[in-house]
Amino acid sequence: MAKSKVVVTRQLINEAQGLLDAKKNDLEIVQWQSEKGASGILVMLTDKVDEELLEAAGPQLKTIASFSVGTDHVDRDALKKRNIRLGYTPTCLTDAVADLTIMLILMAQRRGGESMAKVSKGEWPQMPWHPLLMTGPQIRGSTVGFLGFGRIAQASLQRLLPFGIKRVIYLTSKPGQPAKEDHYGLLKNAGIPIEPAASAEQLAQESDVVIVGCALTPSTKHLVSTDFFSKMKKLSVIVNIARGPIIDTNALVKALDEEQIFGAGLDVIENEPNITADHPILKQPRAVLVPHIGSATIETRVQMATESVRNLLAGLAGEAMINELEL
Amino acid sequence: MAKSKVVVTRQLINEAQGLLDAKKNDLEIVQWQSEKGASGILVMLTDKVDEELLEAAGPQLKTIASFSVGTDHVDRDALKKRNIRLGYTPTCLTDAVADLTIMLILMAQRRGGESMAKVSKGEWPQMPWHPLLMTGPQIRGSTVGFLGFGRIAQASLQRLLPFGIKRVIYLTSKPGQPAKEDHYGLLKNAGIPIEPAASAEQLAQESDVVIVGCALTPSTKHLVSTDFFSKMKKLSVIVNIARGPIIDTNALVKALDEEQIFGAGLDVIENEPNITADHPILKQPRAVLVPHIGSATIETRVQMATESVRNLLAGLAGEAMINELEL
Repeated sequence: MAKSKVVVTRQLINEAQGLLDAKKNDLEIVQWQSEKGASGILVMLTDKVDEELLEAAGPQLKTIASFSVGTDHVDRDALKKRNIRLGYTPTCLTDAVADLTIMLILMAQRRGGESMAKVSKGEWPQMPWHPLLMTGPQIRGSTVGFLGFGRIAQASLQRLLPFGIKRVIYLTSKPGQPAKEDHYGLLKNAGIPIEPAASAEQLAQESDVVIVGCALTPSTKHLVSTDFFSKMKKLSVIVNIARGPIIDTNALVKALDEEQIFGAGLDVIENEPNITADHPILKQPRAVLVPHIGSATIETRVQMATESVRNLLAGLAGEAMINELEL
Repeated sequence: MAKSKVVVTRQLINEAQGLLDAKKNDLEIVQWQSEKGASGILVMLTDKVDEELLEAAGPQLKTIASFSVGTDHVDRDALKKRNIRLGYTPTCLTDAVADLTIMLILMAQRRGGESMAKVSKGEWPQMPWHPLLMTGPQIRGSTVGFLGFGRIAQASLQRLLPFGIKRVIYLTSKPGQPAKEDHYGLLKNAGIPIEPAASAEQLAQESDVVIVGCALTPSTKHLVSTDFFSKMKKLSVIVNIARGPIIDTNALVKALDEEQIFGAGLDVIENEPNITADHPILKQPRAVLVPHIGSATIETRVQMATESVRNLLAGLAGEAMINELEL
């Protein structure tokens, strides 16, 4: 019987590569090559899995293993109609992304990017001290609004509690209804009110900190746009750790320009990574933009790589994946 | 009887100014003027209170009210021998500084400054994704070492707990002895080991995150220098939210250059604010430097200004200050 062929679109971290290499006798492994004839494909978030790729691979393709928490780069209908299984890594990056969420909130409130830039340009000696120099809003006492209230949002909330936030509201695909899952027992025991918002408008109006943590779907694309920003508080900040297109970038630039909001912290942005030095968001001193590093810790990336390989192998063997998306 | 004259070295925030103005009939208030003939002086951290200033003011001077948590800009012996009272604002900025501490830890670990700079320069489109791109150490599982373990350090620890740190060690002026004060009940109830370090060497060797939060004294100046860095872990980070001279800047630059440590987050630095664009620390991509904004939130600065004025007025009236330093 011919060996199953497996294609991996990247060189992997040692631990994960070892797992794969251990199957050398059972599988034909091709890395950095065409997908043609593959039974399994391990892809990154930056690889589009669409009709074209599936056609190129051929009818023997059984399994896609994505090295990502999101699956918006994958055409799920196309997989479903071919009966191809989809593995992903939704849980192991929760801590890393939640940590970065807190960093971005604090940078947006405390003018982290703006103040670093002033120092780098050598402006510190010319900044005469006065009581409101480089001040921003304090997080204690804040109402925090979550767009999307899944595992990463709740892990971020867990971290925010000792900062003294006073209230949480969240919007899910079912406005006004309580969240189904309480990943860390916070809904019961956080000690502050945690309530579903009736609408995006209410969330915009009442939040001092808005955290975008929902999946990208046709209904969340540009969920945050001119209308949303116009209802936000002047001293509020917004953070996006989910997917770029949920925020309308032009509307964000305008909101910052017109001081409708205080600041923004972005791990993701529309059209990433094609952000050139002349992009208007980079002209906004109160916008912090980092290059999609939410899951970029050594520990998490090793775990994601390892889980992706396990999903790939499980898919080929017809076994249970660590995480499989129901199509 | 002549009115007492009061000198204030800065224009104050409205609330605080109002408190001062309400005493216009009882006091002669001079702002932005010479100290000559003053009974009370309200100073900022950037104003040196030394023999020269006290001589210039004259023997009627009764009270110094400092708008700061630290008092290393004040010659305490010179005040003591003249029987001048010293008010300060040690508690109201705890939250703001602890918040910034967490921001700096995360920026140092997650390469916040370095990754923002790459995006700003337009390098994102040319960063080919690979699993270890822009990764840093994750905070979960860390041992956190505090140099100084007062109120701000303990408030920072409180915020760090839900990030999943696993152990805390701290060094005070009495190595090996348990901290006297447990400001937030953490020493008893944090759920992780919190222990005094026997020496700076032990703290350097065992910590994944080092937080400099002690007062600047002759014995803490350059407490963190070549020897300390040489014992730190390769993936560790150091954060300074106390006073610049506690870290030897040349030794830090060398440690970063030689990759003895992973990164640094600094709110303070030796010789601040005289940091020009050619300063060697600004050439280090893994060093984040912000311009002493620890207490720079609107809420905290309003409270510091208000408390400073209350201290000043209490000093003149011979009443109890909100916070008075025993000289």
